[in-house]
Amino acid sequence: MNVHVPVSQIAAEERPGSRKVYAPGVLHPDIRVPFREVEVHPSANEPPVTIYDPSGPYTDPTSTIDIAAGLPRAREAWVRARGDVEEVTPREVRPEDNGNVAERLKVPEFPVKPRVLRAKGTAAVTQLEYARRGVITPEMEFVAIRENLRREQGQPFIRDGESFGAEIPDFVTPEFVRDEVARGRAIIPANINHGELEPMAIGRNFLVKINANIGNSAVTSSVAEEVEKMVWAIRWGADNVMDLSTGRNIHNIREWIVRNSPVPIGTVPIYQALEKVNGVAEDLTWEVYRDTLIEQAEQGVDYFTIHAGVRLPFIHLTAKRVTGIVSRGGSIMAKWCLSHHKESFLYERFDEICEIMRAYDVSFSLGDGLRPGSIADANDEAQFAELRTLGELTYRAWDKGCQVMIEGPGHVPMHKIKANMDEQLKHCGEAPFYTLGPLTTDIAPGYDHITSAIGAAMIGWFGTAMLCYVTPKEHLGLPDKQDVKDGVIAYKIAAHAADLAKGHPAARAWDDALSRARFEFRWEDQFNLGLDPETAREYHDETLPKEAHKTAHFCSMCGPKFCSMKITQEVREYAAGMAPNEIQAGLDAMAEKFRETGGEIDVAVGS
Amino acid sequence: MNVHVPVSQIAAEERPGSRKVYAPGVLHPDIRVPFREVEVHPSANEPPVTIYDPSGPYTDPTSTIDIAAGLPRAREAWVRARGDVEEVTPREVRPEDNGNVAERLKVPEFPVKPRVLRAKGTAAVTQLEYARRGVITPEMEFVAIRENLRREQGQPFIRDGESFGAEIPDFVTPEFVRDEVARGRAIIPANINHGELEPMAIGRNFLVKINANIGNSAVTSSVAEEVEKMVWAIRWGADNVMDLSTGRNIHNIREWIVRNSPVPIGTVPIYQALEKVNGVAEDLTWEVYRDTLIEQAEQGVDYFTIHAGVRLPFIHLTAKRVTGIVSRGGSIMAKWCLSHHKESFLYERFDEICEIMRAYDVSFSLGDGLRPGSIADANDEAQFAELRTLGELTYRAWDKGCQVMIEGPGHVPMHKIKANMDEQLKHCGEAPFYTLGPLTTDIAPGYDHITSAIGAAMIGWFGTAMLCYVTPKEHLGLPDKQDVKDGVIAYKIAAHAADLAKGHPAARAWDDALSRARFEFRWEDQFNLGLDPETAREYHDETLPKEAHKTAHFCSMCGPKFCSMKITQEVREYAAGMAPNEIQAGLDAMAEKFRETGGEIDVAVGS
Repeated sequence: MNVHVPVSQIAAEERPGSRKVYAPGVLHPDIRVPFREVEVHPSANEPPVTIYDPSGPYTDPTSTIDIAAGLPRAREAWVRARGDVEEVTPREVRPEDNGNVAERLKVPEFPVKPRVLRAKGTAAVTQLEYARRGVITPEMEFVAIRENLRREQGQPFIRDGESFGAEIPDFVTPEFVRDEVARGRAIIPANINHGELEPMAIGRNFLVKINANIGNSAVTSSVAEEVEKMVWAIRWGADNVMDLSTGRNIHNIREWIVRNSPVPIGTVPIYQALEKVNGVAEDLTWEVYRDTLIEQAEQGVDYFTIHAGVRLPFIHLTAKRVTGIVSRGGSIMAKWCLSHHKESFLYERFDEICEIMRAYDVSFSLGDGLRPGSIADANDEAQFAELRTLGELTYRAWDKGCQVMIEGPGHVPMHKIKANMDEQLKHCGEAPFYTLGPLTTDIAPGYDHITSAIGAAMIGWFGTAMLCYVTPKEHLGLPDKQDVKDGVIAYKIAAHAADLAKGHPAARAWDDALSRARFEFRWEDQFNLGLDPETAREYHDETLPKEAHKTAHFCSMCGPKFCSMKITQEVREYAAGMAPNEIQAGLDAMAEKFRETGGEIDVAVGS
Repeated sequence: MNVHVPVSQIAAEERPGSRKVYAPGVLHPDIRVPFREVEVHPSANEPPVTIYDPSGPYTDPTSTIDIAAGLPRAREAWVRARGDVEEVTPREVRPEDNGNVAERLKVPEFPVKPRVLRAKGTAAVTQLEYARRGVITPEMEFVAIRENLRREQGQPFIRDGESFGAEIPDFVTPEFVRDEVARGRAIIPANINHGELEPMAIGRNFLVKINANIGNSAVTSSVAEEVEKMVWAIRWGADNVMDLSTGRNIHNIREWIVRNSPVPIGTVPIYQALEKVNGVAEDLTWEVYRDTLIEQAEQGVDYFTIHAGVRLPFIHLTAKRVTGIVSRGGSIMAKWCLSHHKESFLYERFDEICEIMRAYDVSFSLGDGLRPGSIADANDEAQFAELRTLGELTYRAWDKGCQVMIEGPGHVPMHKIKANMDEQLKHCGEAPFYTLGPLTTDIAPGYDHITSAIGAAMIGWFGTAMLCYVTPKEHLGLPDKQDVKDGVIAYKIAAHAADLAKGHPAARAWDDALSRARFEFRWEDQFNLGLDPETAREYHDETLPKEAHKTAHFCSMCGPKFCSMKITQEVREYAAGMAPNEIQAGLDAMAEKFRETGGEIDVAVGS
């Protein structure tokens, strides 16, 4: 076949002000755990700040990016070394896998096809199974190093928070990770066919993670565009990416994404299964669905959203809702159940699904097909009946050695958020919770990244392990690049605010470093330590563009005369009994210079 | 004097999709309480939705706007009718009131000077004093009508929330307002010289309010520009505006703002006082400060931030902070105290300040000059020592018949927010709390409207009565128009999310109306009911611009085949035992049309 891969715009590009660094393993010396390091000005006399970094080789200027080759597959050796997998002849790609797309509209197949692995016999080749056996995998050590952000064991830190019963250790050891995975309290989504993966953990006793959704926006979108969306999302901090593509070319596009993704990729297989039966929900069969699971498992998808909790007896519970069923997967299954007057085949065949999942270590993301789509429907019986079923399924999946997380809502007013977490903990055995928002009001279409960041921060604090982002386009249209970035940043804020409130020992250092930079007028450090240095710098420069002002000991809000931070420095000197010293003289000189250069910007923004 | 008023761009412009309506009083038949009404599509068979509307005559197409004339002064008659005020010869404007601005840079004086009123003798002409005497003022009835959003007493509503001890009634009566004001639990900021005011209440048992800060951004900015900032902020929903201008022309600019403002205007008089002593904090005197209070009280400013809690013995408590003193008012007073080694003159002269406040009914906003400026400094002894002092001053002000609210932080991680509210309630006798955010993390310069909307929603839920907005430019530069809008909308979200969670009986109807519109694919209704119809429509149209799609029974996220809301409608029909009916046929026809017109947008954004 003639492969016409569009020239990719994607190049290795370091984030400005940051440096990519790696830490090696001890148990597994060949692992290289990536971090982003922000150096601060020498005057601060402080070590650089280490930041969790899911962005992969794309932010390493020493790496060569070729999306037609895919990322290096360092992890494949770890998988093969365990000796419990074998190469299999992959399922053949069929026209319906790509939505029977016409040849002229077909996107190219990914040029390199890695050998497909599967468990030998009926073995469970899951991180859960290894953890139960007491094995610390390279994946587990990788995660342990990653979560500590290069802190050393025994190093001083501030422990200040309310964790609502989470058991966050002072220092994450590989053994702690193993134990958390063995208990089902954390998962490491890591399909054995995803050799490109940099492993990460999702669990209440780890840093709160975020997921970004992407999906093909038109049949004509190029594969490079799709890969770029993923790269863009992880550049800003997405820990996971779900490919929610539907329609044509989805098999081929998915392959390009997985082969180029250092983060776990999730999907909702029912979308593709529905495509295979021409969009007619009633025509879905277990066989078509099963085939789709295998197809995607072989490609290396790390977790599947499976709406097995949408049971026939629960469906009528939604009839009086203001917004009925708003999950697509949920509504597809509801339609299937009602038209056949039969129990969901996902529920009935759950054990068989588990057999497939464990043969590739695809994690379950048990979908909340009956989640509320409005404030009015929050925490109703339909939602909680399903949640209890997800709890039941969690234990069944665990029995089969499968990793599990649980999806949560949705639209929930603030006073009903905690009950979601409490019910989930109660019924799902502390399996990680993974929520969409929740949105705390329905009145702000166009701003649902904000309505939901409020709920996400709160539920993250209460114990949710991963937050699925919402973009400003939610309910309205397709997110573009700016929307993806806005969604990711709003959710990084929510996740970090949650880490702080839980008292995660690795969280506070970042805030403190930035606040010291702010107080000491180290403008460049303040920008570089921020979630989005480019935007911070741009906003600053709108008012005070001159380079000199980046070292000025005041900012545009107050100008030199009113600068409260400058006054505080004076207060400190007074309080310490010091006479105005050389530093003060320097400050005055700067202020004078500011006036001379026309900085008549005596403006108030706070009080 | 030659008055050169720039041609104003400000015209009466209705919000699209909304209609300005007024409700009359019963006790005071001449009052006209404004609302914004959103009509929904006739197919919904629903009454219009009434929305709280602080935007004043600027959104009434029947009004004539002339900023050189100011708004109508309907309230002046109410004030005069009480018989306890008299016209006084106003203090003469001095060059230093406008920062000794050179004649060529001077902005024009406001052309019409209303007669200045003051209490007769030593009377307290405050809403608190009237309330204590059992008088229901027109202001109180106005507020009562406003808070009910045109609900009738006894009308059914949903009561669902956790109010943490707030005592929100099912229906707000004028007597309830009087009682809340009498108890000091609510204030109605309403200077007797602000005849243009549409009264509003700030209190825990009323809807949560928001404040927007504006301020002159350069000496050359025109007065029209300054007035426009205020008009813009209230258009999007700001309930109060603080004019934090510093530098030159501030007296004149303030006059233009107050004369054109239907919302309460707050200021921080110490800023202007400092200007009068050439920016040298040590040179501040009680006499200069006192003169400034009178100057601004005569202009009609409705509340003053007064940092009387920054006491000499507390200042050293900030020396070891990461970010010291970040409030400008606080740092000015700290510098004054330390350089004179004397107690704050604001604290020492507090009774005299009260005498001035009550003579014009200027409300106190007791400033938190020692608020934390970083996560590290939250809830420390400096902050809480000041808060306890503000509590002491609250009772002293109440003794003098003055209205009081209390300012709060700042930067606070989520787990420490509630303690702020609890301490405030404990020490300040339930006087309304008015907080800046708080920001829940320090790591996101450029996005502090989001870091702080999280904290604002939570503290609003816990009982804060007014939320001071934060714009994306916080810490970085001067907010422009877009920033002001972004800040106001983020805070409308926070305030409404808080109202919902508190279970305010007037809150839920708005969300439910929007969600019904969403579920029924009434796109226009969904836009118009949103906080920002223009942006919602624009986002929608990026993907599906055709007018026909605004009546389509699906949206761009899923397209017609996967539409979960459409499927749910089918589920309802199945559940109700109905065969696919004509509505269904209509839906299918729409879907077919969508395919024909090239709408190959089968894209996933949720799961």
